[in-house]
Amino acid sequence: MESLKQDMEFIVELDKMKSILRRTRLIHEDRREDDAQHSFHIALMALVLEKYSKYDLDIFKVVKMLLIHDLVEIEAGDTFCYDKKANEDKKSREIKAADKIFSILSGGLGQEFKDLWYEFEEGETKEAKFAIAMDRIQPMLNNFHNQGGTWKEYGVGEEDIQRRISPVKEVSDELWTFIQDIIKKSRELGYIKD
Amino acid sequence: MESLKQDMEFIVELDKMKSILRRTRLIHEDRREDDAQHSFHIALMALVLEKYSKYDLDIFKVVKMLLIHDLVEIEAGDTFCYDKKANEDKKSREIKAADKIFSILSGGLGQEFKDLWYEFEEGETKEAKFAIAMDRIQPMLNNFHNQGGTWKEYGVGEEDIQRRISPVKEVSDELWTFIQDIIKKSRELGYIKD
Repeated sequence: MESLKQDMEFIVELDKMKSILRRTRLIHEDRREDDAQHSFHIALMALVLEKYSKYDLDIFKVVKMLLIHDLVEIEAGDTFCYDKKANEDKKSREIKAADKIFSILSGGLGQEFKDLWYEFEEGETKEAKFAIAMDRIQPMLNNFHNQGGTWKEYGVGEEDIQRRISPVKEVSDELWTFIQDIIKKSRELGYIKD
Repeated sequence: MESLKQDMEFIVELDKMKSILRRTRLIHEDRREDDAQHSFHIALMALVLEKYSKYDLDIFKVVKMLLIHDLVEIEAGDTFCYDKKANEDKKSREIKAADKIFSILSGGLGQEFKDLWYEFEEGETKEAKFAIAMDRIQPMLNNFHNQGGTWKEYGVGEEDIQRRISPVKEVSDELWTFIQDIIKKSRELGYIKD
């Protein structure tokens, strides 16, 4: 029962994901989303958007990656993607956090999750690229459907947005066209800083 | 692009899951959890607890089932499990909701999700049984780590709790022993009505 005790400790830790606020705001309510909500959203998004991928995917791997990709924030906190200063030591803070959080688990699963997290962070495999695309598209969708969301709130310009969304280009023509259309409309609506 | 438009409409709908409150309260903060947080939690729980299952599982199917099992609540709302009156017409409200929400999707995915939802609701396959066990264990864990949570708030007695948790017995000896220990401790701590 020792291994189950460890695994249950990990499961209790997961509840903290519900209290880690991101900058992104919800679409249908004026409130910031949290890491648990975000992870749920993009894991399900991956299942829905898989068919637009240029490459055949191990989609279960993508879903697992998305469910665990933000767990390091239980230790390291959320880092706003457009905050250049906070992003300087993000990597080292998150590597320490990954060691801590995944080592709670019994057996080989902690290592599997850690490997998945590194694979996501490195962004080299087709599964990691697709997962990253999901992670980038969702906040943009929310911003678009939320009168500009964080773009407007923090005065983000198009150059930063294009850099942030660029990984989508490699994974899907349809998603790339869709997201460029959203950016164009957002510019016209004044959601994006000139 | 028509199919992508439909799929994106579904993805925007998913954001509503973040606003559907359940009765269960968070562990580390005094606030109710929502459907998106709950679905995230139990999908990841399934990956962690798979190894305690008595039967070999298609675990990806379990994860998909758990990610979509509460989507009907976007239309039908959350029904508190210990509210006998509200549970009388739950089934018919949710069947209508499933037709509506899953028909937004393009191609065959809506049907696949609907089939998964029915499989979960019917609870006959080993994947559905395991998924249901996850759905039942998580709120109990939260109640135990939250000074009694909904048990205390609504004066729930042990008979109702045992009925609610009974599906766990069939899927795992270890999880059954673990949960019975939690109920015993909760009784001693006065979390459960005599």
